Amino acid sequence: MQAADTVNRLMAAFDNRDVDGIAGCFAPNALYHNIPMEPVTGVDAIKASLAPFMGMASEVKFEVLRSVTNGNVVMNERIDRFNMGGKWLSIAVMGVFEVGPNGITAWRDYFDLGQFQSQMAAIQGG
Amino acid sequence: MQAADTVNRLMAAFDNRDVDGIAGCFAPNALYHNIPMEPVTGVDAIKASLAPFMGMASEVKFEVLRSVTNGNVVMNERIDRFNMGGKWLSIAVMGVFEVGPNGITAWRDYFDLGQFQSQMAAIQGG
Repeated sequence: MQAADTVNRLMAAFDNRDVDGIAGCFAPNALYHNIPMEPVTGVDAIKASLAPFMGMASEVKFEVLRSVTNGNVVMNERIDRFNMGGKWLSIAVMGVFEVGPNGITAWRDYFDLGQFQSQMAAIQGG
Repeated sequence: MQAADTVNRLMAAFDNRDVDGIAGCFAPNALYHNIPMEPVTGVDAIKASLAPFMGMASEVKFEVLRSVTNGNVVMNERIDRFNMGGKWLSIAVMGVFEVGPNGITAWRDYFDLGQFQSQMAAIQGG
């Protein structure tokens, strides 16, 4: 269950808003692809893409609803929640993680960008 | 692997644009939720929601990139392709399937609705 352990560690690092902890779960040349956006490659780029968003959230909770593992592949179904200035934004997500000996080599998250954007607009507008 | 077999049968029924075959994979009170849209409950409602879309496509190909099963839960990562009047529309999707003795009891698909809508607009406009 090494692959599942690595993904659990990543989820916990998000809950702790621990960007270094997040980075530590990835292999050096890892791919991170929020499917509606452009993919990002390499730990430094992953860190740079996540740090601003983590900085905006005062609390983060990745609620894993279901998780299935087979060999080096983990898939999970989640609700990702972010407290943005006292208002919670939540996104329904499925993620797939490919895990190698040095950590996660690929992470792809599937979600509806509109669901995220409309909540961000409501928070920023209200 | 009964759960995986049922999901494979569902994927094949889509490739055959076989709405009755699709319906036959579900338990009577099944839930079908395209996450960006409202959920649909019951085989008849599932059929009614899929039939118009299947009718618009001259070919359908559900390409399963990865699939993981644990007990009654199957998760897969796919590219769903639809030939709409000679132009192919493709959507990057992850799905989760809960399978009971009478077929699929819940199917939730995660994707970016904007990716679908922008391609539909391009096809209808061009």
